[in-house]
Amino acid sequence: MQVVHSKAEVLAWLQSVRAGNGTLGLVPTMGALHAGHMSLVAASVAENTHTVMSLFVNPAQFGPEEDLDNYPSDLEGDCRKAEAAGVDLVYAGTVDELYPTGYATYVIQEQLTDGLCGTDRPIHFRGMLTIVLKLFNIVRPDIAYFGQKDAQQAAVVTRMARDLDIGVTICVLPIVREPDGLAMSSRNAYLSPAERAAAAVLYQALQEAEAAVAGGMRSAGEITRRVRGRIESEPLAEVDYVELVDCDEISPLAELTGRGLLAVAARFGKARLIDNIVLRTP
Amino acid sequence: MQVVHSKAEVLAWLQSVRAGNGTLGLVPTMGALHAGHMSLVAASVAENTHTVMSLFVNPAQFGPEEDLDNYPSDLEGDCRKAEAAGVDLVYAGTVDELYPTGYATYVIQEQLTDGLCGTDRPIHFRGMLTIVLKLFNIVRPDIAYFGQKDAQQAAVVTRMARDLDIGVTICVLPIVREPDGLAMSSRNAYLSPAERAAAAVLYQALQEAEAAVAGGMRSAGEITRRVRGRIESEPLAEVDYVELVDCDEISPLAELTGRGLLAVAARFGKARLIDNIVLRTP
Repeated sequence: MQVVHSKAEVLAWLQSVRAGNGTLGLVPTMGALHAGHMSLVAASVAENTHTVMSLFVNPAQFGPEEDLDNYPSDLEGDCRKAEAAGVDLVYAGTVDELYPTGYATYVIQEQLTDGLCGTDRPIHFRGMLTIVLKLFNIVRPDIAYFGQKDAQQAAVVTRMARDLDIGVTICVLPIVREPDGLAMSSRNAYLSPAERAAAAVLYQALQEAEAAVAGGMRSAGEITRRVRGRIESEPLAEVDYVELVDCDEISPLAELTGRGLLAVAARFGKARLIDNIVLRTP
Repeated sequence: MQVVHSKAEVLAWLQSVRAGNGTLGLVPTMGALHAGHMSLVAASVAENTHTVMSLFVNPAQFGPEEDLDNYPSDLEGDCRKAEAAGVDLVYAGTVDELYPTGYATYVIQEQLTDGLCGTDRPIHFRGMLTIVLKLFNIVRPDIAYFGQKDAQQAAVVTRMARDLDIGVTICVLPIVREPDGLAMSSRNAYLSPAERAAAAVLYQALQEAEAAVAGGMRSAGEITRRVRGRIESEPLAEVDYVELVDCDEISPLAELTGRGLLAVAARFGKARLIDNIVLRTP
């Protein structure tokens, strides 16, 4: 496995491997790798002849009050995990090269980015879409892997790939959870032991909603009130949002008919955690 | 020469020609071809093994009060000119395929799009950048050719290619002019005979500014007042802007030192025409 930091080194590597007929998978990450990331790597390694992992904490997707400066980072540990999992190239780009002086161009998306995390994080999706497009252009993968944990991100990137004719297949893989149900996230590292125990309430609340739907509940208002109430029963939790939205359009649903994405965000101390479940009527 | 209307046909053509080691040039146009466009084609044909011309009147770059519905169109005539000039593929895409239902993703640029035409045409550059990126992704050229007549567009596209790591070389070629100096433009077709005669004042005013700079004038205020006065001496002309800006940043200059882009926009009847000249201090 090679670890490189410049676009020129990525290009040189691509030229060295692209002679053959294989396919290239990309797993874009911000590092601080956990089992969720590694499930994306495992899929890419299984499905492609070559896998690139990018590690880049992208300043353009963090708001001024957010955790850019504290975001967990462990390049050495990440590279060990990547190598053991069969990654061929780690591209850990630099801010100076990716956002040179005079940087001015961004990708935006309407509609899908208005709700959920777009409300609290107004520049988040613009920054995320921009770096994802840049990584696609630098690495030129055939397939890129994203986690369903960031369901809105997955929908937004999928729409971007279609809208901008990017020619990269977007593969979205299931949420990987801790034994108590907490979704894997690099930000779980921010949790105190008490907050960590409390955070299990998110998935419990989502599962209760699933059971309520199995029992006949259909109203988005009833479903989200139930989930919000369950999370708020946990004193260490502060709810940012609980919403039922269309899985692809991320637009609010009034009623569950067919599929719907039930998405939550809540704060536990310094950590803002998100989780979701796809609800289906029988 | 082939003429195609779908992305799938472009892809099939690309696969048929990309086996070799050549290079691919793209000339993106809105059709209604004139000698300015044909100078771009000539350069592409001379410099590449294959040349694609796109013909697409892009609705996303026209404001609601603009001339989308009246924009001149002549697919047959354009294809004859393209074939005679050595174009290998004409891609005349459709609005339905390029902007499908649910289309939501756009490229924006800060700073460079604030002034000049960005002031009067607030969504113009967003729409133009978006379609240019889409065409780059569909056609995957090595080089793309743009005219200096749209100097702000050329600067904005050049910056986008750098910022988004697009890997397409942007080639900007000189303005082609009518014998009386009027810059070639598809919109010249809107001019009545009297307006057509009057429109020559744009280049005359720019040339007088060049002479004034050769004579020692350096103040942007003096230079633009002189140009504005000269254009306004023509009763059929209504000035939109006259500005001296940095050639790459498109930011206003107070004083000419080195190079500066002197850009004008003015209306003659229904036609909004633009022109520019690069001024240099000796």
